[in-house]
Amino acid sequence: MSGASLPYDPRNPALRTFHDAIPAFLDGTDTPRDYLERCLEAIGEREPDVRAFVITNIESARKAADRSSDRYRRNRPLSAVDGMPVCIKDLYETIDMPTQMNSPVYEGWQSIRDAAHVYALRTGGAGIVGKTVTTEFGQATPGPTRNPFDLTRTPGGSSSGTAAAVGAGMVPAGSGSQVRGSIQRPAGYCGNYALKPTFGALNRGGGHSMAPSQSVLGVHAGSLEDCWRTAFHISRTVGGDPGQPGLFGHPELERAVKPRRLARLETRAWPDTEDETREIFEKFLTDVGGQGVEIVSRVDDDRVDALERALLTIPEFMFDIFAYEMRWPTWGYRDMEGDLLSEAVLERLERGEQLSPEDYRDLLAMRDALRRTFAALDGAFDGYLTLSAKGPPPVGMPVGDPVYGDVSSCLGAPAWNLPLLADRGLPMGIQLLGHPHEDYDLALRGRWFVESFLAA
Amino acid sequence: MSGASLPYDPRNPALRTFHDAIPAFLDGTDTPRDYLERCLEAIGEREPDVRAFVITNIESARKAADRSSDRYRRNRPLSAVDGMPVCIKDLYETIDMPTQMNSPVYEGWQSIRDAAHVYALRTGGAGIVGKTVTTEFGQATPGPTRNPFDLTRTPGGSSSGTAAAVGAGMVPAGSGSQVRGSIQRPAGYCGNYALKPTFGALNRGGGHSMAPSQSVLGVHAGSLEDCWRTAFHISRTVGGDPGQPGLFGHPELERAVKPRRLARLETRAWPDTEDETREIFEKFLTDVGGQGVEIVSRVDDDRVDALERALLTIPEFMFDIFAYEMRWPTWGYRDMEGDLLSEAVLERLERGEQLSPEDYRDLLAMRDALRRTFAALDGAFDGYLTLSAKGPPPVGMPVGDPVYGDVSSCLGAPAWNLPLLADRGLPMGIQLLGHPHEDYDLALRGRWFVESFLAA
Repeated sequence: MSGASLPYDPRNPALRTFHDAIPAFLDGTDTPRDYLERCLEAIGEREPDVRAFVITNIESARKAADRSSDRYRRNRPLSAVDGMPVCIKDLYETIDMPTQMNSPVYEGWQSIRDAAHVYALRTGGAGIVGKTVTTEFGQATPGPTRNPFDLTRTPGGSSSGTAAAVGAGMVPAGSGSQVRGSIQRPAGYCGNYALKPTFGALNRGGGHSMAPSQSVLGVHAGSLEDCWRTAFHISRTVGGDPGQPGLFGHPELERAVKPRRLARLETRAWPDTEDETREIFEKFLTDVGGQGVEIVSRVDDDRVDALERALLTIPEFMFDIFAYEMRWPTWGYRDMEGDLLSEAVLERLERGEQLSPEDYRDLLAMRDALRRTFAALDGAFDGYLTLSAKGPPPVGMPVGDPVYGDVSSCLGAPAWNLPLLADRGLPMGIQLLGHPHEDYDLALRGRWFVESFLAA
Repeated sequence: MSGASLPYDPRNPALRTFHDAIPAFLDGTDTPRDYLERCLEAIGEREPDVRAFVITNIESARKAADRSSDRYRRNRPLSAVDGMPVCIKDLYETIDMPTQMNSPVYEGWQSIRDAAHVYALRTGGAGIVGKTVTTEFGQATPGPTRNPFDLTRTPGGSSSGTAAAVGAGMVPAGSGSQVRGSIQRPAGYCGNYALKPTFGALNRGGGHSMAPSQSVLGVHAGSLEDCWRTAFHISRTVGGDPGQPGLFGHPELERAVKPRRLARLETRAWPDTEDETREIFEKFLTDVGGQGVEIVSRVDDDRVDALERALLTIPEFMFDIFAYEMRWPTWGYRDMEGDLLSEAVLERLERGEQLSPEDYRDLLAMRDALRRTFAALDGAFDGYLTLSAKGPPPVGMPVGDPVYGDVSSCLGAPAWNLPLLADRGLPMGIQLLGHPHEDYDLALRGRWFVESFLAA
């Protein structure tokens, strides 16, 4: 492996898995410390080019790995993530590293606590390797991270660093978060498995979001199994957001479940999707259908058509909901000396200032109406399929268009990114979306896709 | 006025009003700076005994008052709270004073921002006089604050300092917050007007709550008018919690509205309520009825009876919801060196550790069921009346029993504390509770009570 860009194959050998290393930890032929050293080797090779990390704490990760190695030696791992090296999106607080959010406002800022999911991972025995690059406050100025499969291209954002680190095989898993498409888009661009869960399913405590009514914490990983085990461990340990029940299901994905009936969604992104990418999607759907799964589109089903029409309303409320919710604390940051905010943030803030509480109430009502339209379809399909992006990760465009990602965010619904496809030598993901609280069932169906499309 | 305890009369002359000072600010016969100096004089007299403040920033408050005085001189006040001296509960961040939460975990901790409501108040021209005492994390070890009407008695908690400062006339208004009864109880014990608003109606950003699915930010004040104007200003400026629409209504209370039909609620507190206090409540209800308002009880109306029965289920879910939600970040605090948490916090945390996500899901479902029972009564009454406490503020009991306060918290409903009564020479409040989003309409009805029971 060199620092140069790598060609991409969906059977990406660089992706690092963890769950399948555990038997060797237990029988003594491998250890979490050795596993970590392999990650550190990959970081040493790829990080100078990919630039996924803001800061690392290798010493702390090595200590955690040694303690974990001891536990496996005694056949007493702490949890399903014991010994797993992970990275943390730099919007979430860590007790041993600053939390800087790619903003000079938080330069060097040190919290006195671990964010909820960091606490869950650390106390479960995972090694917190470092903080990964985000865009400014998860929404604006991109960081320095590059796409591991073509260094001239974006990794996507705002979970840029985690997606690139996982895609390059530096770590088996890490945290991301999403308000629009900040998990799905970088996961798609970097060939990650990722779960953007049901709204509120993973505790966001100790995280900083500019649009809290829609943001979610999620997980990126090198495999579906590790993605689920990491998310499930977090939710079982520190719960979902307060007032939300969290994730349910089994700690491990027990089996693959073949879906019977899936809806394809075009969404408003379809007209702008590149022709080659559309063809790839059509061929994929044909292949899925060829395996005996019924694929239903808006042409076949009036309810899907109603949903597609409802999804077209997203731009009417989504941007303004964010602009309104970001006013605090962003106003305070704007008041600080030194012009610390980017133009993009300032413009959005100014938009937010033009909105009244009555406007905001109406915007929330529009989002609720969309969710009700979706809820009317509950039980009709085993999932909904969309692309993860309009085309390969762009050159020269900061973080790419999140348009395929915002559907699940606005619905508050779970979506898995499955890195099943390639598009002109670069990663192209498929999103498998479901109804709220279907996260685990969707994962089992996702496993069927992985076994059907990526098995050797 | 001396530092000794004062006898209490509901027509409490110490209570400080602000709204009625504005005409004099505008005509030049008074200024916000002079108003502030009168507050500082009261603080100088009462604070050594009452001990409401953790820290003050008098210099900053004086500068703000001088700027405000200039604006009134030019007939250009910034907002309805311009020139108002206020205090902030020390669970909420302030850029110019530490936020310490009555816990050694946060001793000397300095945020880099103002909490949302502090930002709204400060930018509206209010003077942030200081941070007021809370119990440990708003839930456990009480601070040093004493009841301004009897220094041997509790001011209640957790909004102890704000309630005592307002009750003693040190400031016209301040912030409080409540998970169970932490606004209503100290407001009742200290003779405050207070609004515990609809869940989410005032932005909690920059606040630290151990039970976020039920906590609310509220306002204490020396008058109903100032309480509403302060709450409304906050909500109109920084909104409600993300995803919640906030407060609606008019910036000022336009008129009194006589209620036609009110329900009295006994709740599970009634059997433990002191006999003298029950008699006071009965006499009050008789007086209300004597003014032509219909008072309905569980004996008269099956729906009220159903609500009373549903309210009895509160202990079955409320304590455990809190215990579950506090686990993060409290676990992290427990892990710190030095045994920084009280026994009470540790015990609750241990209870939370025994609860599973399935338990928590069931607990939320029980709370939802209670809320549905209440929603079935929407429109049936112009409000619900209860006592604010089982008796006068106790001697020798840390902060008193919040049992009358938790009803509105568990319902997510607005409740006004009206300091209409005295009980053996100490304050006794009446709660006027309504359905979610009725905050303003309730305030108009509250004004009828004030005019009917406290007018000279």
